[in-house]
Formats: sequence, C-alpha cells, structure tokens
Amino acid sequence: MTIFLHNYLGGVRQDAADAVHLLRDPVTGEALAATGGRAEELEQGFAFARDSGRAALQAMSYGQRAAMLGEVLKVLQANRDEYYAIAQANSGTTQADSAVDIEGAAFTLNYYAKLGTSLGEARLLLDGAAAALARDGSFQSQHILAPVRGLALFINAFNFPAWGLWEKAAPALLSGVPVVIKPATVTAWLTQRMVADVIEAGVLPPGALSIVCGSSSGLLDALEAFDVLSFTGSADTAALIRSHAGVVRHSIRLNIEADSLNSSILAESAQPGSPAFELYVKELVREMTTKSGQRCTAIRRALVPARLFDAVAEAVGARLAQVSVGNPRNPEVRMGSLVSREQFDSVRNGIATLAGEARVLHDGRNRVLVDADPAVAACVAPTLLGLPDGDAARLVHEHEVFGPVSTLLGYRDAAHALALSHRGLGSLVTSVFGEDESWLAAAAPLLAASHGRVHLVTPDVGKTQTGHGNVMPASIHGGPGRAGGGEELGGLRGLAFYHRRSAVQGSPSALALTTREAVQLRLD
Amino acid sequence: MTIFLHNYLGGVRQDAADAVHLLRDPVTGEALAATGGRAEELEQGFAFARDSGRAALQAMSYGQRAAMLGEVLKVLQANRDEYYAIAQANSGTTQADSAVDIEGAAFTLNYYAKLGTSLGEARLLLDGAAAALARDGSFQSQHILAPVRGLALFINAFNFPAWGLWEKAAPALLSGVPVVIKPATVTAWLTQRMVADVIEAGVLPPGALSIVCGSSSGLLDALEAFDVLSFTGSADTAALIRSHAGVVRHSIRLNIEADSLNSSILAESAQPGSPAFELYVKELVREMTTKSGQRCTAIRRALVPARLFDAVAEAVGARLAQVSVGNPRNPEVRMGSLVSREQFDSVRNGIATLAGEARVLHDGRNRVLVDADPAVAACVAPTLLGLPDGDAARLVHEHEVFGPVSTLLGYRDAAHALALSHRGLGSLVTSVFGEDESWLAAAAPLLAASHGRVHLVTPDVGKTQTGHGNVMPASIHGGPGRAGGGEELGGLRGLAFYHRRSAVQGSPSALALTTREAVQLRLD
Repeated sequence: MTIFLHNYLGGVRQDAADAVHLLRDPVTGEALAATGGRAEELEQGFAFARDSGRAALQAMSYGQRAAMLGEVLKVLQANRDEYYAIAQANSGTTQADSAVDIEGAAFTLNYYAKLGTSLGEARLLLDGAAAALARDGSFQSQHILAPVRGLALFINAFNFPAWGLWEKAAPALLSGVPVVIKPATVTAWLTQRMVADVIEAGVLPPGALSIVCGSSSGLLDALEAFDVLSFTGSADTAALIRSHAGVVRHSIRLNIEADSLNSSILAESAQPGSPAFELYVKELVREMTTKSGQRCTAIRRALVPARLFDAVAEAVGARLAQVSVGNPRNPEVRMGSLVSREQFDSVRNGIATLAGEARVLHDGRNRVLVDADPAVAACVAPTLLGLPDGDAARLVHEHEVFGPVSTLLGYRDAAHALALSHRGLGSLVTSVFGEDESWLAAAAPLLAASHGRVHLVTPDVGKTQTGHGNVMPASIHGGPGRAGGGEELGGLRGLAFYHRRSAVQGSPSALALTTREAVQLRLD
Repeated sequence: MTIFLHNYLGGVRQDAADAVHLLRDPVTGEALAATGGRAEELEQGFAFARDSGRAALQAMSYGQRAAMLGEVLKVLQANRDEYYAIAQANSGTTQADSAVDIEGAAFTLNYYAKLGTSLGEARLLLDGAAAALARDGSFQSQHILAPVRGLALFINAFNFPAWGLWEKAAPALLSGVPVVIKPATVTAWLTQRMVADVIEAGVLPPGALSIVCGSSSGLLDALEAFDVLSFTGSADTAALIRSHAGVVRHSIRLNIEADSLNSSILAESAQPGSPAFELYVKELVREMTTKSGQRCTAIRRALVPARLFDAVAEAVGARLAQVSVGNPRNPEVRMGSLVSREQFDSVRNGIATLAGEARVLHDGRNRVLVDADPAVAACVAPTLLGLPDGDAARLVHEHEVFGPVSTLLGYRDAAHALALSHRGLGSLVTSVFGEDESWLAAAAPLLAASHGRVHLVTPDVGKTQTGHGNVMPASIHGGPGRAGGGEELGGLRGLAFYHRRSAVQGSPSALALTTREAVQLRLD
C-alpha cells in the first residue's frame, strides 16, 4: 500500500495529484509512497512564503524565532518513533544509522535554538564596530546584517532526509527567512512527514515552511532577485543550477555542496599497533560503514606512509570482515542497504572503475547478505581498494563512489601526503591522525586552504574526538572547488547566508537610532 | 604616434605582438596606444603566478606585505604626473575627475598598508574563538582563514583604470594572493603603466602582479580550482563568466559587480530650500557630473516627494546649466568626455530610451562643447529626466545609462519611496537626505536588504559626509541581485575573499600549535 506525499505550499496541504514518482523500500523493493504536484502551485506558494511567511518571521525577534525552533524540536521528538520506522523502510538504514540522521537533526535544531536565544530581542545584527569616515568622527560607517528579502530554497540530497532539512532550516528560520524544501525524491518520505507534522502542529507562521516533493521542474524559474538557494547533490546538477538563466540574471545567492574526495592521513611517524594507528583504522572502518558510506564527508582516500600500507590494509580488512550486511530489520545486521537499486548499480560500477587502477584489498562484492535477496536489495558490503603509490592513481582522486568504499594510498613524506590530499581539488574535510602533535599542527593550515574542515586526532582525544565525518553545528560545513564552494553551519556564521551585509553610513546619532534593535554578531 | 602596451607575465615584460586593439583620445579621436598578446603566454604566466608569486608572497607575514603595499604606493606617487597626463589623454577626464581615480587608488593602498600593519607578524587569521565540541573541553573547533592556494584574476571596467586595480589588488596582495589584472582595453593605458612601473621598480616578488592587455580570450580557461575571479562590468558579460564551463566545474570563487540603478531619496518632510533639500540637490548634481556620471555608484534614480518634484527639477536644472562640458585640457571645462565614442552612442541611445517613458527635464544633448568637435568628441552634457509618479516608469528601474544622466521620480509616502528603491532589484548604494533623523533611521535597515551601502545625510554632516558615490575602503562595496551579489573592501572584511575559511578541530594544545602564527581578525 502506498501513501501520497502531499506538497505543503501557501501554508496549506495541497491536494493529491497524479503520482509521478514512486518511493521504494531499498531492501525489499516494495513501493511505499508516491509524489506528484502541479506547476501552478509553485508560483503562488513561493509568493506566499516571500510575503506572508517572511513578514511573520521578520516581525519576530531572534529570541522569539529561537523559541519557535524549540517548539519545532518538540514536535519532532513527539513523533520520533515514526521517523525511525520511515527511515528503516525508505532508507534501508539500521537504528544506529537512522539515528545519525534523525538525532543529528534534533541536535542541530537544539543547538540553534539555544544559540538564537543568546541574540535576545534583537531584530538586526551588527557586524563589527563603527568606523570613522570623517576625521572628526562626525560621519561613520556601521556594517549591519539584515535578513534577506526573499525565501530560501533547499534542493537536498537523498542521504540525509532529516538532518539535511533541519541543518539548513534552523539557521534560515532563526534568521527570519522562509524555507522551501525540495527533498530528493527517493527518500522524500521522512522529510515530508517531518514538514507535515510541524506545519499541522501550527508552531510556525503560515508560509514559513513549504515542501515540494517529486519533480523539481519549474523550481528555479520561480526564484526572484533576493531569494537564496542551497543545493546539496552531484556536481553535474550543481553545474546546471549555476548556469540557469534566472539564477544568473538575478545573481541568486548560491550555497553548493557537491562531490568531495575527502582524505584521512595517518601521520609519518605512526607505528603498526600504536595508539594513533589503531584510532586511524577504527575511524576508517567507521567512516566506510556508517550509513553504508553514504555521507558526503566519508573518507574516500586513506593516505598512509607507504611502509605501513600492508599493515593498515590488513587491520582494516580484518575489521570489515566482521561487518554484517543486509536487512536492517534483523538485529544482527550492522550495515543496511544503500538508498536505491540505482545507487547500488552506481556504487558497483564505481568499484569496477576504481579497480581498473587500484587493487581490491578487501572485496565486499560477494558477501552473503543477511535476510535480503541480493537480486533485489540495494546492499553493498564494504570494499577497500588500494595503491601503494598514491601518484599511480588518477580516478581515485576524481571519482566519488558514494557507498562503503574507500581507497588506501601510500605516500612518501609529508609534502607528498599534502599533495595527494590537495589532489581532491577541494574537499569538505580531511583528518590527520598521529602521536606527533607538531606534525599535525604543521599540516593543518596548509590543508585548510583546500578543505572546509581539518580534523586532528591525537591519542589524548581518542575518546572525545567527534569523528571525521560528523558535522558539528559549531564548525562550518562545506569545501572549495569540487566540493562546491559552499559554507553551512559554523554557529552564528551560518546566519550570514540568510542575511545581507550592508554598510550604513551616517552621523553617530543616526547610526544609533538605526541600530537600536540590533545586537553584535559575536564569534566567541 | 602610438605606443605598445606590453603584457607582464611570468614576472617579466612580454615582447610586443601584433596590434589587436587601438586606444584613442576620446576628445580628439587620436590613436594613443595598441595592445596585443599571445595565448600561449597565459598558461605559463598563470602557473608562474600561482607557484613562484604565491610562494614568495605567502612566505611573508601580513606586516611584511603591508610594508610592501607602502612601497607600491611610493612608486605610484613618484610617477603621479604621468598618470594624470595619461588619464586626461585616454579617459578624457578633467584634473578633478582624474584625481577621483588616481588619488582614490593611493588612498585605498595607503589604507590597506596601514590596516595590514596592525596584523603584524602573523601568517594566518583567526576567525572567532575556539568552541568546545566535547563537553569536557578536550576537543575543540577553531575557525581559521588561510590564504587561498591560487591566484586572483581581475577583469576590470573602463571607468576606474587606477582605483579599480588597486582597490582589489591591495587586499589581495595583503592576503598573500598573486594578482593578474585584465583592464578594459579602451582605458588600459593607465593600468598598464602603473603595473609596469611597479614591476620595473622591483618592489613586488616576481609573479605577484601580472597584466594582460587587450583580448580576454583564454583567460577563463586558464583558471584552476583554487583561483578566484573578481569581475566589474556589464551584467551580460557577468552572465557569460558565471556560466563558463571551467568556472562552473571548479566552483571558481567569484566576486561580481554589475549593473546598478542606485537611488537617492529626499525624505518626506523636506521643504524647498531647507538644508536637506539643498544638500540633496547639490549631491545629485555632483553625482551626475563627477567622471561624467561614469561611476557604478552614481545616482540613477532620484526619489523625491511628489509635491517637491518641480522644485527639485528646477534647482537641479539651474545647477546643471552651469556645468561647462568639453576638452579637459581647457581650464574652463568642468566636465570632460566619456571614455569612447561607443559609450557616447550608448549614452545617447540610453537617453532616447528613457525619454520614451520619462520627460526630459534638463536636456544636455544640444549643449555647445568647449574646445571639442561634437562630431568627434565623446562629450555628453548632463541630462535630467523625470516622472512625477515613479510607478509610471519601467525602464528607468531596469536600464542603467552609464553617463551624466539621472531620472527624477516622485513618490507618495515612505512605503512608496522604499518600494521604488527596491525596484532596482539590488543596487550598490542608496542615500537618504533629510532633517528627520528618525525617518532616515527607520528606512535604513529596510533599504539595507537590497543595497550594499546605505548613506544617510542629515544637515549636521553636510560638510563631513563622504559622498553618495564615493567608495570608502572602510565600508563594503557591492550589492545583491542586479548589482552582481559581490562584496569588496570593508576594511579587513575585504581579505575574506582571498582567504579560505576552515574549521580546525583538535585538542587545545594541537590547536594552539596550529595557530601560533595567527592573529584574530577583528572588525572593531
């Protein structure tokens, strides 16, 4: 039995339309839900969000909007069991992997609810102090951040139907900017259910949150000059978005998170079995298997001293062999499926492509699945490839295989390790594991130039480090170049995308009057 | 006699090539200089900038690079007379208008030299304080700004051959990022001469500064993943740049300043002859005539209470009639020419277009020129158009006539004034003139959402206000939507474009080691 995933636009649930896409259980192949919609709904819905939704949100203070995020969180927590059931059915994830998405969403919402409270009754943000323009100080410049005069459209990826929505919506709504979410169709159910719950609960002003399921046709054409657009997905789709005539004509502000060949580096002085070595191996296996490797931050390239290549390969392989793969309904299963059979084909093809230039060190392709039909289920067991000389590879540095797949690459010295990491041409994150703190500290600023996040793990933080792939809301998320050039989260930094910076110039008293409802944006 | 404008690439002067473009005196039509170059120079030159130029710059501290900017300034000051002569010949500007460009460049260079000194011996910037990621504080996140791993390409406009280069190059070089400048061909002489002087003086490391004159063919193709690109010019060219395959593929970071229908608002309570009224009229005339209206920040739409429409038209017209126009070599001349006969045609056509929907209130088209042949010189006298009801116009809000042309528009009330201002769909600057400080202060945050700068003038700052159209380096310069969405200058904010923000996560001691050569980026 399938259900219909209604759009919510103009503040209300839209009628069911002809089913255009079907959502399936990626383990059993069963049809779960259908999407569809009408193009004419879009323009009206966008206008309502921009006018009514924005007016209502921007009439509130940051503190009031922060309290509103707290109410959203309560609605989500009340329906949590349902969300886990939907995730298991539609994303094929185990309880632990569903939690990464669902609890990650709650954690981020809670984080912004608290952070927003600190902004109190302000309605405007100050960006730094006033600067004198006239020598006698009678004329000054004060930079302010004002909420954007438009809506925020999110075109999201399939791997985080919960977190992917709320990590963007929390800073947007806190900023007073209405949100329209277009989830990836294949896993849209969880997103749609959360949006429906929140809207039906009446905790947001009408028009503050809208959802378009199914086709993305007409979405970009509906954007106007002051709207902003945040996209997470493939570099190919990103290219289409960047070049879209309306986006170009209106200079639509874009945030793009695309492909990323993240690396993790084991420092030069590591020894087999040393604490850093063990932490490195454990992290690599966790990154390969969490959400079946379907995280944009997962380690795709594991860079190790060439002399440790075999030792790391062996240690990782031994752990991967222990990972049971199959139907997430079976409590024995540690790793569920990919989100769809299309992704299954894509990952299998990707492994074959990489295997054209790298050795398969641990092959998951013939693994027996638990409670799942290999002809139907989108299950792929973890697979490690490798090349003792990282320079001998090309595709490994260019082609992201979005599944439980990583490639081990040997490096000669520190400079070579950095050069290999940079060959990702811009990535979301890199991590460095080692006992030698000064080696890590010397590498970090150099790695920072091509990575949005640099994660340093010394043995003393082995238990408290937050994980290579986990996106913490206090840190920015995004990377240059191939990774899309975007930037999300980062505490209050995440609000900047939803505000317009402007230099107000005037007398000290005119500026004081202008900013009487403003609070300083502090990053400490 | 024409001279050849040599390219400087790979740290050295390139040989003369076949002349591709001729630069002319826009008043006399005389040929002055020629440009040309070879495509194969580009790739090598860019690689040299990225490797040698960047390495040398980034080996220096901010303080050392600030001192280097001071040396650049000395070179420019030593050759100042020559620059005025080139500006007069190639841009057709009076001494006062040449100063806007040449002294503006020096002022901005000096500003960044001083500002950079305050960063001292640091080689890295801290963005805010460390945030705890683990509850016990053992694992933290520290955002840093690291100089980008590429070069900065500037594709510049014809109206500011001096300031347009240095307002971008100062923050870039201070950040440690090598610069390649492609000036607009029609006025490239002054830019080329300044670059040649600075390179020949040896005050910059080889590869830190390069120039490509003439054809822009192949420039975008030569960009790589971590390069950045700053463009000032038309919205049409901006659209080509945004959609360029390589720019899209590498997510090249772009800063774009394009068309802008800036407005200036006379507040509701103004009276004919009141101090604010007089300041407003004076400013409008100054904006229309400075550099013959060829500033992207000039007032294109003058918004006044409908009841004051005739009074403002009369006062402005009376002042415009006093402006002598012609050959800038004649000391009687207050306003010189446009930069070319092409611009002359474009402005004349633009006036005709606007006159299709607005009345011509002060017609400059038949003004007798001083010492200039109207069949040859690119001189256009100031022209004021107008419509008592601002809503009756459409093209006035969309079509930027880049010359001494402005349109007076009547508004009904405060909401109407704001709505008309927003109809520019994103502009660089708006100004508000009035005695009623609270009226200005209420408008400012709302105007901020669609303008990069909001300039408030009350009578008490009549003498010290810095001018609607003047870009002060302490304030950001740029605007959303039609204006391109870019952001330049703004004090230390201007360095962000040339740095990559990254969240470094680690133990407090690993972070302390990582940032031991860093200084906090402070905006106060």
